[in-house]
Amino acid sequence: MNAAAGAKPRHFPIVDVDVHHNFKNRSDLFPYMSRFNAERFSEYGFGVQSSTAFNGGKLGRRIDIIDENDPPPADIGPVAYDVDDTRARLLDHYGIELALLTGGPGQLASAMMDADFGSAICRAFNDFSIEHWLEKDSRFRLALHINSQDPAGAVAEIERVGSHPAVCAVMLGCGAPRPFGNRFYHPIYEACVRNGLAVAMHFGGEGAGLNPPPSAAGYPSYYIEHRQLRPSFYMVHVSSFVFEGVFDKFPSLKIGMLEGGFAWLAPLMWKMDLDWKGLRRQTPWVERLPSEYVKEHIRFATQPMEEPDNPEALKHIIDWIDGGRTLMFATDYPHWDWDDPTMTLAGYPDDLRRRIFAENALDTFGLELPSMSKAA
Amino acid sequence: MNAAAGAKPRHFPIVDVDVHHNFKNRSDLFPYMSRFNAERFSEYGFGVQSSTAFNGGKLGRRIDIIDENDPPPADIGPVAYDVDDTRARLLDHYGIELALLTGGPGQLASAMMDADFGSAICRAFNDFSIEHWLEKDSRFRLALHINSQDPAGAVAEIERVGSHPAVCAVMLGCGAPRPFGNRFYHPIYEACVRNGLAVAMHFGGEGAGLNPPPSAAGYPSYYIEHRQLRPSFYMVHVSSFVFEGVFDKFPSLKIGMLEGGFAWLAPLMWKMDLDWKGLRRQTPWVERLPSEYVKEHIRFATQPMEEPDNPEALKHIIDWIDGGRTLMFATDYPHWDWDDPTMTLAGYPDDLRRRIFAENALDTFGLELPSMSKAA
Repeated sequence: MNAAAGAKPRHFPIVDVDVHHNFKNRSDLFPYMSRFNAERFSEYGFGVQSSTAFNGGKLGRRIDIIDENDPPPADIGPVAYDVDDTRARLLDHYGIELALLTGGPGQLASAMMDADFGSAICRAFNDFSIEHWLEKDSRFRLALHINSQDPAGAVAEIERVGSHPAVCAVMLGCGAPRPFGNRFYHPIYEACVRNGLAVAMHFGGEGAGLNPPPSAAGYPSYYIEHRQLRPSFYMVHVSSFVFEGVFDKFPSLKIGMLEGGFAWLAPLMWKMDLDWKGLRRQTPWVERLPSEYVKEHIRFATQPMEEPDNPEALKHIIDWIDGGRTLMFATDYPHWDWDDPTMTLAGYPDDLRRRIFAENALDTFGLELPSMSKAA
Repeated sequence: MNAAAGAKPRHFPIVDVDVHHNFKNRSDLFPYMSRFNAERFSEYGFGVQSSTAFNGGKLGRRIDIIDENDPPPADIGPVAYDVDDTRARLLDHYGIELALLTGGPGQLASAMMDADFGSAICRAFNDFSIEHWLEKDSRFRLALHINSQDPAGAVAEIERVGSHPAVCAVMLGCGAPRPFGNRFYHPIYEACVRNGLAVAMHFGGEGAGLNPPPSAAGYPSYYIEHRQLRPSFYMVHVSSFVFEGVFDKFPSLKIGMLEGGFAWLAPLMWKMDLDWKGLRRQTPWVERLPSEYVKEHIRFATQPMEEPDNPEALKHIIDWIDGGRTLMFATDYPHWDWDDPTMTLAGYPDDLRRRIFAENALDTFGLELPSMSKAA
């Protein structure tokens, strides 16, 4: 066990629910694909392009961690992450006990017109992740990538590798032809519950391939604008999960929403509750206040933390959304706008930080800390 | 002048920036159209359908004001509003000094594939509004309807009737093929500035006709979900106006965003400011904090007011968005979820209410109170 190597003394463990891993070269996935799919992936790549491709930092990553002697190949873009770098600079350096690896290609694979090819890429990526990341460090946990627009294929993949001890969630990208509360997706949730997996939701794929544009007004021109839409990428799904009755149908299902921030959740819960009082005859299966469903079933990663001028404002927001229950710490390593765990929520009470930095993630993803199992 | 008829004594005047008027029957617009367009409108209507058509109340309106002996014709839906009803029940009853009429067909007309027909419907509606609403009561002001996807036609319409003394704004619907900061629309803003008109923005048309679906995940199933998307309908445009440099190019332009609420603005301004610090080399023409542009140029209608459990939360939100400067009172009459002026922001300080109930709207739309001109 290397969980404590390099850790500074602190009062609580850290679980990081959004660590980006990926393959470095397309050829990394070839061993896990048919020759036909490998040739296609080699020649054409994903064949769909995300409108978020232009980014900050350098290729989306922290400039200081890029090895100039080993630049990412041009055909991969900002996804050439390194397992040893992540272990040393993130896990060891900050004493992170568990890290959820979020990848990956699922958001774009789910936007492909050819559903089988999208599912094949996800399958290859999961096998690659198990061999080249999970097996390299016991602190890694994995959110399986699936093709959300191929529910039968997604269920097959969940059944194939969902029982791996380090797999704890299934990844859904926010961009999609229909919101994720829709009954089209329910077989996926059924498979999650059957395998004891949570759902991890991460933006990506908006406006790509078969997905609609990222907003009701189409495509913005600049990356900085696209970032302002992120809350909306999650709002539609929060509302859809609640009002389509997903949590009434799957009462044990938990959902972690990653890299979307959380300050927007307070106004959304107020509005859902108010509208439910006036309109609930339209969705009579929603028997409680929408905010109660959210607080029971949905969790939100802290990064990118909103930073109001007045730090008191953030305290109020965290209070209004019951952050001690709904928030989970995330670094978003190695992206340029990552959050440093030593600076995140510094000055907040230790019992709140303990829940946000570890307990809520352990509950949501059904995890056990290495330090706990060692003690047992 | 009938401005004071029926008014209760109060310490400040009321300007209502979102009163829905409309035609009752398609034939109401025929006198203002070519025979060809009248026949087409009679036979086919708009030819596009808004995904918000299912609504609350009765056909979207307050149930208590519907005359059962004069139900709206089935082909019009929830838009059969009455000028005498609005004068008596809204203006007289509450002593409202000025009311901005917001209509209307512009949102759907802008979603039509046939740009000339969309512009013709807007033109007819503006003429109808002038004859049957503005000329019936001097307290009415009008936001012109235009076909936003036909900028040349929109500019021609602004030049045709923009100088009418009761016209004070140009209406844009939120649903559109591209965000409203885009240079495609700049001729419209140039015409607004030239005619001393503000922009009034109101949701509508999302997912209709040539517009993209209402979210990055397509169409939700239920009306209550659609309401949760409303903040996102405005967020994309707030961000677009700022980052496309619209206010740098048109420094006198003011925009009123109506019926979208405002609590979501606080997190959006925090996020825009933070992201601008990290990414401003991508849009170097944005020389100040995005929130400064918002506070200077964009105003938000109070209705539908967010109602947190804890009323203190609303006070904080209003403080954080500088509500004494950015908010304008609106009833949204005659919709079922309208806000009663006697109950809106009751208990807030009088100087704040005075600005929200009148002064900010007068500034934004360049209006003068009837009571002021009488005194002069």
